[in-house]
Amino acid sequence: MILIGLDPGLQTTGWGVIEAQGNRLRHIANGAVKSRAADALSDRLLALHDGLMAVIAAHTPDGAAVEEVFVNTNPQSTLKLGQARGVVLLVAARSGLPVAEYATRLVKKAVVGVGNADKRQIRAMVERLLPGCKVAGEDAADALAVAITHAHLAGTAAALHKSFP
Amino acid sequence: MILIGLDPGLQTTGWGVIEAQGNRLRHIANGAVKSRAADALSDRLLALHDGLMAVIAAHTPDGAAVEEVFVNTNPQSTLKLGQARGVVLLVAARSGLPVAEYATRLVKKAVVGVGNADKRQIRAMVERLLPGCKVAGEDAADALAVAITHAHLAGTAAALHKSFP
Repeated sequence: MILIGLDPGLQTTGWGVIEAQGNRLRHIANGAVKSRAADALSDRLLALHDGLMAVIAAHTPDGAAVEEVFVNTNPQSTLKLGQARGVVLLVAARSGLPVAEYATRLVKKAVVGVGNADKRQIRAMVERLLPGCKVAGEDAADALAVAITHAHLAGTAAALHKSFP
Repeated sequence: MILIGLDPGLQTTGWGVIEAQGNRLRHIANGAVKSRAADALSDRLLALHDGLMAVIAAHTPDGAAVEEVFVNTNPQSTLKLGQARGVVLLVAARSGLPVAEYATRLVKKAVVGVGNADKRQIRAMVERLLPGCKVAGEDAADALAVAITHAHLAGTAAALHKSFP
């Protein structure tokens, strides 16, 4: 099963594609889609949409996992993130992918083992779990982390389902 | 010039299409695109996207005007609205429409004359400014109001440009 992880942001949306076969994970590709701060908001959202549609067309994943947005105390930041996140979720739906959502804390716990892991720890653990993977940046590392989380938890759910059909 | 006004919301996004020729406004159509609360968030955003794409295909507007989202004190509400708004702005951009954004207060001021007008006043004034228009609901009334605001302000800008080319 091929999974795409997505870490939404208006300026930079990270993405990471992995293959999961049972417990075994393999890195396929990762990167980030960016929008230019100087452009109109609608054009920035279009850049994210078009960039992510191209990534999904290139890697044809079977499912998507999206990081839950950190709800900022600054409502304007929350609104911006919400707008980017809406487009990211829409792209997955337009591509016919089932979408799972995971809280940041759960992703950190699943990948690093602690819910308050920092960016550096996440990146190091992602590179250990996906041998040969070169991470494009922090957002791509977060995206791979949410894909790994989904592979683990969806795998566990499938195993439980096998035991108790 | 044909303009579409949009009032974004996850549950209900209002839309209203008018024709503006100088000072003269004519109602073309209005309505609302809804998503079902029981569906997954990504499917709800897809329903908004597909519904609005169909409205734009049917009425082929030349430009879009979108109401600015009220930034709620509840961050979860702001996030939800942001996600819907991101999809609404994206649909306009995907359709190649220039997008203008107007604060709710400015829309009320332009249509009713006071910045704190209530829903009832907006609807009554929209129906007065667009003779023969039957408003589908509150969200459609707000969408027509933002289209009217855009027609007035864009008209003013064009007139100024004519005087001082």
